[in-house]
Amino acid sequence: MKPEDLFVERLRERLPTDERLLLGPGDDAAVVSVEGGTLVATTDTLVEGVDFLPGENPDRLGRRAVSVALSDLAAMGAWPDFFLLSIGFPQSAAEDLPLSISLAAAKRGREFGALLAGGDLSRAADVFVTAAFWGRPVAAPITRAGARAGDVLFLSGTPGDAAAGLAIARAREGLDPGRGGAGWTPEQLSPADETRLLAAFRDPEPRLPLGRALARERLATAAIDVSDGLGADAARLARASDVRIVIESAEVPRSNALQSFAVLAGLDPTSLALEGGDDYELLFTVAAADAPRFSDPPPEWGVDVRRIGRVEAGEGAFLEEDDGQRPIGDLGFDHFEGRR
Amino acid sequence: MKPEDLFVERLRERLPTDERLLLGPGDDAAVVSVEGGTLVATTDTLVEGVDFLPGENPDRLGRRAVSVALSDLAAMGAWPDFFLLSIGFPQSAAEDLPLSISLAAAKRGREFGALLAGGDLSRAADVFVTAAFWGRPVAAPITRAGARAGDVLFLSGTPGDAAAGLAIARAREGLDPGRGGAGWTPEQLSPADETRLLAAFRDPEPRLPLGRALARERLATAAIDVSDGLGADAARLARASDVRIVIESAEVPRSNALQSFAVLAGLDPTSLALEGGDDYELLFTVAAADAPRFSDPPPEWGVDVRRIGRVEAGEGAFLEEDDGQRPIGDLGFDHFEGRR
Repeated sequence: MKPEDLFVERLRERLPTDERLLLGPGDDAAVVSVEGGTLVATTDTLVEGVDFLPGENPDRLGRRAVSVALSDLAAMGAWPDFFLLSIGFPQSAAEDLPLSISLAAAKRGREFGALLAGGDLSRAADVFVTAAFWGRPVAAPITRAGARAGDVLFLSGTPGDAAAGLAIARAREGLDPGRGGAGWTPEQLSPADETRLLAAFRDPEPRLPLGRALARERLATAAIDVSDGLGADAARLARASDVRIVIESAEVPRSNALQSFAVLAGLDPTSLALEGGDDYELLFTVAAADAPRFSDPPPEWGVDVRRIGRVEAGEGAFLEEDDGQRPIGDLGFDHFEGRR
Repeated sequence: MKPEDLFVERLRERLPTDERLLLGPGDDAAVVSVEGGTLVATTDTLVEGVDFLPGENPDRLGRRAVSVALSDLAAMGAWPDFFLLSIGFPQSAAEDLPLSISLAAAKRGREFGALLAGGDLSRAADVFVTAAFWGRPVAAPITRAGARAGDVLFLSGTPGDAAAGLAIARAREGLDPGRGGAGWTPEQLSPADETRLLAAFRDPEPRLPLGRALARERLATAAIDVSDGLGADAARLARASDVRIVIESAEVPRSNALQSFAVLAGLDPTSLALEGGDDYELLFTVAAADAPRFSDPPPEWGVDVRRIGRVEAGEGAFLEEDDGQRPIGDLGFDHFEGRR
């Protein structure tokens, strides 16, 4: 038996069966059972040296690959059913690498009821993991295009933590931390702050329960998941909805851990919050009449949400500070320009 | 607007609309309309330097990424509906690279009625393209597991042509051709032979019409697409079906072009046919009573099919030659071992 077939055999032994999965990994394609109607589908890739550090733990990597793809479904108000996993890995990698990634991904998917249906292995110079998910909208899907002048802008979680976590992870590996350069060491942070920031980068939480609530109760007029930075993704939402978005700087939540990191690294916490990628939080707009419903988010959403700005007629995304407004749409990560 | 958003805008402008595609590229996820029942899903990745040569034409690459993924659906007797495309590319790549890949992939998909629903761009050291397809079985899906002792083994097309094409492409690029080493040049082949072999490697034809006919008329008891070599994939089918497969060497079709190449490169054409990857032909088993129906394949299948062996009780895959049988299951490409 070839090593690739042994991989599939070991994977199959460890995956639970499910009546929705008529034929799982190991044949030419997966066969699943679905209800008719509307499907929501998305794919996301993590690449070594770009989206995660070389030598990343494969369990963490598999888990994160699933989480970031699920974040897209969360932003649509959809719930996942199945996914496919494509893994590239170098010849030098231990044979267990793709198995560990796959099992961790399958476990993470199951937390949300999503099943690993199949996948593909490739030889590649750098490790990469692509997850392609499909699922169903819990109600009409929430797009980026429904925001209207007069709406209120909300954000889940605390942006910038993941960007700080990446800088810490890089410093821990002896790499240029990128943000804040050298001159500090992670040991200067409290262990609690370091743990929180590292976790924000390494182990994001897809906001599926929040997205489900927004769709089911038609609370959001538009939504986007913040993956490339709050500034860039706010600009995307503004463009798709043909509106102007104003983020009020004083309202943007900054975690205590982020503020400690910013002081240590000599960085502006607002810049970290606006430009930091990998947040995987939901940015969404709400009709003014519905805004009070967010004053006390129910615990099942699993995350705090906060009003951070407003929607106006016009175009573009702006940050409003005491001394005026400045455009922020060109901040953040771009896949043509690479990791900052 | 960020370059990534410009990419999406340019892509959207060039994609036709379709009523099944409720929301295409450009939002957090795609939204599509499906009938209930059974879905068949698969994913395949092409990696630069492994599955295609560095500097490959992006139009050819996008087209091929779609074809090889569709080959998996063909082997299941399924027909595609939608696909997602994940593209990794280096910062040095021209901005048009992912657009060219995407448009060529979308065009190739449309030839079979499949729509590009969405995707993802990633920065990566080497180019890679992952296509994740889903569609519907035209009847009960054909798996690898239904072959029975007494069945007859059939193959579409002429195996080994793609492996010869890869060697020619490598030689044309001044790379070690891999198969047959040095000592020959592509110019020693006739232009027609060279064209045929290069096309077999660069532009495989997914055998969707054949797979559809096999499923609809329940003609195949089992099927697999030959992607890693006839020997290795025959062994996979044998293992999944718990049978013994005997390939009769004299019956394996060898194109005239392959034979010319083999003479030139000093290689055994049978080895090329058994070990060559990237064929994307269908290997399938048929109950003996149905075998006569393949004596005159209808033109709509788009490919010749030929009886190449038989199914017996036992296990493993063997090549039968005048002097006896030898095991062939360990031949061929393995994604843990890399390109031979």
